[in-house]
Amino acid sequence: NTFGMANGHAKLNASFTPLFSRLKSGPISVISQSGGVSHLIAYQALDERVGLGKVIGLGNRCNVDFADLLPYLTGDEETGIIVLFVEGQDDPRVLLSEIRKTAPHKPVVAMKAGQSAESARAARSHTGSLAGRYEIFEAALRQAGAIVSQDPGELLDIAKILTILKPAKGKNIAVMSFQAGPGILLTDAVVRNGLSMAVLSKRTQGRINRLLPPFTIRTNPVDMAFARNEEAFEDTVRCLLDDRKVDALIVFLLHHPFMTPKRIAGPLLRQKQKSEKPIVLCANSPRGFIEDEVAELESRGIPVYPLPERAVRALKGLFEYGEIREKGTG
Amino acid sequence: NTFGMANGHAKLNASFTPLFSRLKSGPISVISQSGGVSHLIAYQALDERVGLGKVIGLGNRCNVDFADLLPYLTGDEETGIIVLFVEGQDDPRVLLSEIRKTAPHKPVVAMKAGQSAESARAARSHTGSLAGRYEIFEAALRQAGAIVSQDPGELLDIAKILTILKPAKGKNIAVMSFQAGPGILLTDAVVRNGLSMAVLSKRTQGRINRLLPPFTIRTNPVDMAFARNEEAFEDTVRCLLDDRKVDALIVFLLHHPFMTPKRIAGPLLRQKQKSEKPIVLCANSPRGFIEDEVAELESRGIPVYPLPERAVRALKGLFEYGEIREKGTG
Repeated sequence: NTFGMANGHAKLNASFTPLFSRLKSGPISVISQSGGVSHLIAYQALDERVGLGKVIGLGNRCNVDFADLLPYLTGDEETGIIVLFVEGQDDPRVLLSEIRKTAPHKPVVAMKAGQSAESARAARSHTGSLAGRYEIFEAALRQAGAIVSQDPGELLDIAKILTILKPAKGKNIAVMSFQAGPGILLTDAVVRNGLSMAVLSKRTQGRINRLLPPFTIRTNPVDMAFARNEEAFEDTVRCLLDDRKVDALIVFLLHHPFMTPKRIAGPLLRQKQKSEKPIVLCANSPRGFIEDEVAELESRGIPVYPLPERAVRALKGLFEYGEIREKGTG
Repeated sequence: NTFGMANGHAKLNASFTPLFSRLKSGPISVISQSGGVSHLIAYQALDERVGLGKVIGLGNRCNVDFADLLPYLTGDEETGIIVLFVEGQDDPRVLLSEIRKTAPHKPVVAMKAGQSAESARAARSHTGSLAGRYEIFEAALRQAGAIVSQDPGELLDIAKILTILKPAKGKNIAVMSFQAGPGILLTDAVVRNGLSMAVLSKRTQGRINRLLPPFTIRTNPVDMAFARNEEAFEDTVRCLLDDRKVDALIVFLLHHPFMTPKRIAGPLLRQKQKSEKPIVLCANSPRGFIEDEVAELESRGIPVYPLPERAVRALKGLFEYGEIREKGTG
């Protein structure tokens, strides 16, 4: 028993949830052992305008299981990213083997419930499946090539970045902001999440020193101060992306009437065309001011997140998928 | 140099940010060494309808520092909770001593930047202050009685719960949901964040067994299934709150046209009047459907969060403040 399924592409809503008819269609497909959790993910996607394709509830897997659906979604042209919510599996090897086949072609982002004895027992009662030792299952999922997250919000953030950007090649991040404080928060988040702050080359450092006023932070993070000079901004973006020690760039922007994503879109998109490196924008604003500008930027290849931690965790997922692709799956 | 200050109560906006005039007034006051970070917090507060009082930017603390403002806010009738964003302090003992005086009277929720060498260097350049070894500073903040968070979103979630509820007396949580999956996610979040799932007494377990249909999860987490029976819901809430082994209750609800917060508000508020134990609602919905019902519930003493992780972290903050109050400060 579960809620059924919905398909954003076919405008099909074979579920008991009227809201699913509003889903924006997109390349993320979700297979979930829990109807409730797939609703949680779909509601977040609706709220954040992230496009979903197939949303499929397995329930207690009476006649359809992950192992049946993964090959289908791997071959499905409308599906670019596959999200799994797993409670437990009687024979996890079948699931792991299917992930191993899928991951080189399409990213698999997985969440596994049952981290504690209490939740494992509840999962068993819910879908009749043995949750197993969480740590072992999680390690096996990673080894098979899945990107693992413990949090439904983060899961969707990672899925979203993978729909917009190619896998990151390294984990050395450059951070740019217009205020020092948020740049420092981003730096903390980068290090806390196991990524690294890029050490800028002497050449880059020299170029940035000439571009920026003396009182700002000109190492990494780079604080532009509240500069109104678009040319210096674009030149700094170029310098950072040019640096061989930089693998990805996060830019932080706080909404202000004269400082919205549109203001920096031109420079960012121009420099993006000249570089393969991921650019992520962390743009914070109360609701109602920048949504359309965010949608425009995302449609042109720059994903946007509202909070430092979320931007960094998404970028970490992109880096993890880069590693998975490079290693192949074991 | 910094942005100035705003005061939600006096409808004063002495900052360069027009949006601050829209702040909802409330008991949370913010002192920040970074103008950008106080904007980030205030924008989140605007977005989530959390009320702020004074929002004060210190900048490089030319003539006003935390130690000047903490005693002022401690005595300020409009301030119930104090949020600090600290980059670094030349003499941290002065700050710690002021926190020690404030914490028994009003919760102090603090975020400290500079966890990594890179961010500590940036903080030094930003406000001319030594960030110090993060771990030592964080431990000292906790010892002085502050609740420490690393994330601006979490910081505000904790501040919000402290404006609505009294400190929690213990960390044994009961979880109720209408779908098993989200109940299991909440259970994982409870254990992951260092709280415990309450072990229900035999008596409670017997009562719940009689109340709920046999196929649902009837230990903790309790899954009500998609029950349309308000009486069984209220009886289950009562049983859980009655159990001496339960210190707090989290209820999870997914929006559905016939299942919104209003539907369970009556039972929750009635049982709340009979119990001192904190009740938190985790209500997930796309934007635009339940905001007014959420505001109504929060005004009547039940804080609401959209995601399991956020509800649990907030409750953890409430428990930490309970411990701080019980121990007194050292």
